[in-house]
Amino acid sequence: MTVSPFDHPLLSGLLGDEEAARHFSLEADIDAMLTFERALAEAEAEHGVIPRDAAAAIVKALAAFRPDTAKLRAGVARDGVVVPELVGQVKAAVGAPHDAYVHFGATSQDVIDTSLVLRLRQASDHIGLLLGENVARLTGLELEFGERQFMAMTRMQPAIPITVTNRTASWRAPLERHQERFGELSSRLLVVQFGGAAGTLEKLGDKATAVRSALAAKLGLADAPQWHSQRDALAEFAGWLSLVTGGLGKFGQDIALMAEVGSDIKLSGGGGSSAMSHKQNPVKAEALVALARFNAVQLSGMHQALVHEQERSGAAWTLEWLILPQMVVATAAALRLAAELTAQIESLGH
Amino acid sequence: MTVSPFDHPLLSGLLGDEEAARHFSLEADIDAMLTFERALAEAEAEHGVIPRDAAAAIVKALAAFRPDTAKLRAGVARDGVVVPELVGQVKAAVGAPHDAYVHFGATSQDVIDTSLVLRLRQASDHIGLLLGENVARLTGLELEFGERQFMAMTRMQPAIPITVTNRTASWRAPLERHQERFGELSSRLLVVQFGGAAGTLEKLGDKATAVRSALAAKLGLADAPQWHSQRDALAEFAGWLSLVTGGLGKFGQDIALMAEVGSDIKLSGGGGSSAMSHKQNPVKAEALVALARFNAVQLSGMHQALVHEQERSGAAWTLEWLILPQMVVATAAALRLAAELTAQIESLGH
Amino acid sequence: MTVSPFDHPLLSGLLGDEEAARHFSLEADIDAMLTFERALAEAEAEHGVIPRDAAAAIVKALAAFRPDTAKLRAGVARDGVVVPELVGQVKAAVGAPHDAYVHFGATSQDVIDTSLVLRLRQASDHIGLLLGENVARLTGLELEFGERQFMAMTRMQPAIPITVTNRTASWRAPLERHQERFGELSSRLLVVQFGGAAGTLEKLGDKATAVRSALAAKLGLADAPQWHSQRDALAEFAGWLSLVTGGLGKFGQDIALMAEVGSDIKLSGGGGSSAMSHKQNPVKAEALVALARFNAVQLSGMHQALVHEQERSGAAWTLEWLILPQMVVATAAALRLAAELTAQIESLGH
Amino acid sequence: MTVSPFDHPLLSGLLGDEEAARHFSLEADIDAMLTFERALAEAEAEHGVIPRDAAAAIVKALAAFRPDTAKLRAGVARDGVVVPELVGQVKAAVGAPHDAYVHFGATSQDVIDTSLVLRLRQASDHIGLLLGENVARLTGLELEFGERQFMAMTRMQPAIPITVTNRTASWRAPLERHQERFGELSSRLLVVQFGGAAGTLEKLGDKATAVRSALAAKLGLADAPQWHSQRDALAEFAGWLSLVTGGLGKFGQDIALMAEVGSDIKLSGGGGSSAMSHKQNPVKAEALVALARFNAVQLSGMHQALVHEQERSGAAWTLEWLILPQMVVATAAALRLAAELTAQIESLGH
Repeated sequence: MTVSPFDHPLLSGLLGDEEAARHFSLEADIDAMLTFERALAEAEAEHGVIPRDAAAAIVKALAAFRPDTAKLRAGVARDGVVVPELVGQVKAAVGAPHDAYVHFGATSQDVIDTSLVLRLRQASDHIGLLLGENVARLTGLELEFGERQFMAMTRMQPAIPITVTNRTASWRAPLERHQERFGELSSRLLVVQFGGAAGTLEKLGDKATAVRSALAAKLGLADAPQWHSQRDALAEFAGWLSLVTGGLGKFGQDIALMAEVGSDIKLSGGGGSSAMSHKQNPVKAEALVALARFNAVQLSGMHQALVHEQERSGAAWTLEWLILPQMVVATAAALRLAAELTAQIESLGH
Repeated sequence: MTVSPFDHPLLSGLLGDEEAARHFSLEADIDAMLTFERALAEAEAEHGVIPRDAAAAIVKALAAFRPDTAKLRAGVARDGVVVPELVGQVKAAVGAPHDAYVHFGATSQDVIDTSLVLRLRQASDHIGLLLGENVARLTGLELEFGERQFMAMTRMQPAIPITVTNRTASWRAPLERHQERFGELSSRLLVVQFGGAAGTLEKLGDKATAVRSALAAKLGLADAPQWHSQRDALAEFAGWLSLVTGGLGKFGQDIALMAEVGSDIKLSGGGGSSAMSHKQNPVKAEALVALARFNAVQLSGMHQALVHEQERSGAAWTLEWLILPQMVVATAAALRLAAELTAQIESLGH
Repeated sequence: MTVSPFDHPLLSGLLGDEEAARHFSLEADIDAMLTFERALAEAEAEHGVIPRDAAAAIVKALAAFRPDTAKLRAGVARDGVVVPELVGQVKAAVGAPHDAYVHFGATSQDVIDTSLVLRLRQASDHIGLLLGENVARLTGLELEFGERQFMAMTRMQPAIPITVTNRTASWRAPLERHQERFGELSSRLLVVQFGGAAGTLEKLGDKATAVRSALAAKLGLADAPQWHSQRDALAEFAGWLSLVTGGLGKFGQDIALMAEVGSDIKLSGGGGSSAMSHKQNPVKAEALVALARFNAVQLSGMHQALVHEQERSGAAWTLEWLILPQMVVATAAALRLAAELTAQIESLGH
Repeated sequence: MTVSPFDHPLLSGLLGDEEAARHFSLEADIDAMLTFERALAEAEAEHGVIPRDAAAAIVKALAAFRPDTAKLRAGVARDGVVVPELVGQVKAAVGAPHDAYVHFGATSQDVIDTSLVLRLRQASDHIGLLLGENVARLTGLELEFGERQFMAMTRMQPAIPITVTNRTASWRAPLERHQERFGELSSRLLVVQFGGAAGTLEKLGDKATAVRSALAAKLGLADAPQWHSQRDALAEFAGWLSLVTGGLGKFGQDIALMAEVGSDIKLSGGGGSSAMSHKQNPVKAEALVALARFNAVQLSGMHQALVHEQERSGAAWTLEWLILPQMVVATAAALRLAAELTAQIESLGH
């Protein structure tokens, strides 16, 4: 156990996902924030908001920039966000006279929210691949065992016989709907955030929307008006993550119940016990239930954070930071575990 | 205070919504369940699954049917669901020889889930109208006061001046996205549930999908394979409800904060105090925050219910009953309150 | 299904508890609020804060008082609380010249919070009796079957044989700790709330603490400084309720799992199915799981309501109203169901 | 942002607490687990359950033992718990013939749960000190500014003047009750877990309770029957943590609101902005609100984990691991921030 199992050197091997976690590392965050600053300088130069020389100097300095992490940490403790200190360091690296054009017209939230979206895009790509793999593996199970039968269990009592596919479809079909859902919500999620101090881009005058549009294009994100106090796309995405893990939790619960009763499934692998060498615990199945319930709990917090007062709520925003990355990693981990668990199913039905 | 404010004779005047609550009354539920049984008999007769005479007798009996509510209550306490007792009463009303064809091939969950979906459709229509009304009223505010200014507040501190529209857009734009979202999810939500004892429609043989399709059409719902243990569409809908109330909670919080500081808003109405006659409490604004946080809490439970074991989980299903209707009414109430609150805004900005 | 199953004419037969729900009826609430006003008038007269004639007139009028419920409903919708309208009606019933002494020095929150505490005391007495009954019934099971054996199940896999008491103790021992816990928390919970407009009892001058103490004594509550914005005792009590239902949820889950596998338990009763006449569903066991998860969800909201800004938060206070009564009734219902379920256990172990 | 801000190199400077986090490091966990194994060997030798030579060999080997972390990680991924692999490594370090007496009669859960309790004791000591410091600092504020006045705010509207102490007492008094509460719950929390494979200590015969008692004494914990599937003490503790942060969230919210309006408080420090150099954001106050809402969310999960099926639920247990350490650190961080924030208050009232 550590503060978060997703970061724990041991528990992350079961409950975490390296690829997803990578996008929430300090390095990935700083990379994405610097990417924002570079793209901003370029976009502003293209539209004549800052001098081309300044943009070139900024791009050059950013390429060689290495942050002073200890000062960044102190900056977060002081300012609640890393950006004032980070921008200060970047300005120092750029030096006079071009430093005045670093982060021009932007505010902390622009950098942090856009960095988040950039990394959610990458994490979502990874999750999308895992979703597809799970659909494929479950389809494989159906091809192999789908026509066999076992007893349906309704309200934890034997009902009537069903085919294996009758049950596996309840694991697979939601995953396919989740694929459909992500296609819908991604256009709301993968959007640049750029509003300046209070959302008005007041320093960019009549170039504001053009710069924002160019910035979005450079970052590969959709363009839209600032959403700094409108967090519905993030809460919607969190709901999607929890839909994914919820369905996988049902899969895990079903497998654990089948493994308990015993004759309907044959599983390879399974965890050992320190007291009973005969045991084969359905560890991955249990972990799926735990991750489903975990995300179901967290989701509540992302919706609490919708009550984001005025133009920027430090409290609501910080609450997102405490929750959303863990939900992403929990989802990737659950998909990884589900794929592995499916591969452990040697037989279903009779 | 009563067990639920949504049912309370006094508190529902503030926190409830009569039109939405109506769809969760006993009468509405029984009506919808009987509608299912009628449509099922008709669909099965059309496809030769039951005799046409039987269907006619069932339709006729249902038209005159009045349930014995005391026995239904005892039935729920005994069976966990109302349907065995209700179907028993309907069969008695139909009488021999046609009673054997009542509820033919169906199970309790088919009736209860389809009844729920039928009533969610109606409640959603109502919510959709309220959403539209809120968008219109906020647009009206923008037309009247949008060019005025006040000080943006970021992290609860004065930032720089913004226009009124800069803030009202943060109340309005999420509502417009919620309209878009409902269009997407409704095709997954407004779907018939018909699977029989364990989801296989085994009593209908090769007529199963045709009957289900006809049943769906008669009910005005989309046709799809049974989803009795796949609850993602309901959890997704619950998430949508909480997105709606979450955004309105931000609106309420903003209004309460503006009313506290005072000069940026002029509100009519406002609640009285039993101790201080000078006070004008922003009651509706506070209620919006409470309803947002309430739904954010409840959503967690709907996602816990995704872990729906095997072919039917009494535990997970019952958990939905304890939560979803309240979320629907909370959402309608919040939209009603928000529309009323918008109408109380006499002035914004300077 | 209705807005809340606890108020539903059918579902409350399974999921509700009449005795607990009674304390959250309109009548019980108004009774308790009038009890507060009567005790306040008496206490203030005894300490010379209001004339003895006025107190006598108030007590007499309250004895005959019947509220105009429709106006109370409109009052709640307008003021967010019922008290301004209710006090107005009481003043009208008292008439000049004594009406000025009704509710003297008190505010809405004093009346509503103290009414709540008075009713929580009664509901807690009921819950306490049910707790004791459950302990006794489980002890009875142990006396009858405790020495028998069955296979322990760890991580849903057979482990080694244990005695029946090894498992029943895991159902009983938490209940005994809950009895101990209530003894501890009740001194913080069953406390009068009396603070006046902003908590200072400014209208009572140097009689304030004496009147508050007398008021508490008349109501059978402990005396303490006002706690209008300190909601920890309520959140603590909510946590206790959820501890109770959580343990019963484990009991229900264990029973459902034993009933699934089959040979370790013999249960009488059990719910019928509309599709499969052979089934005996463990309805009460499933309901215990649902109620446990329900309360676990709600608890989050009671803790959100701890963020109760300044001297009175309409938003946080309203959130409590939406949640706490349902938690109380869910707990009483779970205890009732658990006692009934224990009585259905005809045999345990081998 | 990282997977968890509590582990993040930057964000932990604001939202984390080094001293609390230290108890959830890998090193602290392994230390505590080895402490359990050593005390177990000693207790078993003292009661003649294992040879004294074996105990001496185990104690000696443990003193020099260094785990192979990579293998531990693989062990967790395989077994769901670290103990089988860890015990295997310890056995290898002890070597024949004494290795058979390592972990004798114990199971994974004994080691992990007791390790958790040992570390919760240390973390609670730290939290207790922070609680005391906060009480002292708030008392200091009262001594300095308590007689001054400002306007009470009820329902976010000006009410009547109150003294500063009227408000600061609402921050301080809950902390004092939390101290009282911890005294009550600690006797249920700080308890050894020792039950063996399925809770019966079957390998220890008639020495079982004596060994358990000796083990508890060596570890400085209370002795009690195994509680492996009774998680109420942990959920109760989690509730206590959230009560602490909830009250601090009210403090933070009050400070942020006072800082917004401005004249009632003078604060030093405050966070900077990357866009507006004039701003002094109440960063610590906002963080207190975020941490309060975070814990309120998490608490729901700890109560979901009460539904701990049969003799050991991998799913429910894992869910605790995902949540409880973060709640502990969030609480310590909130107390640290509150103490710092109190120190930043230069003036209150007029």
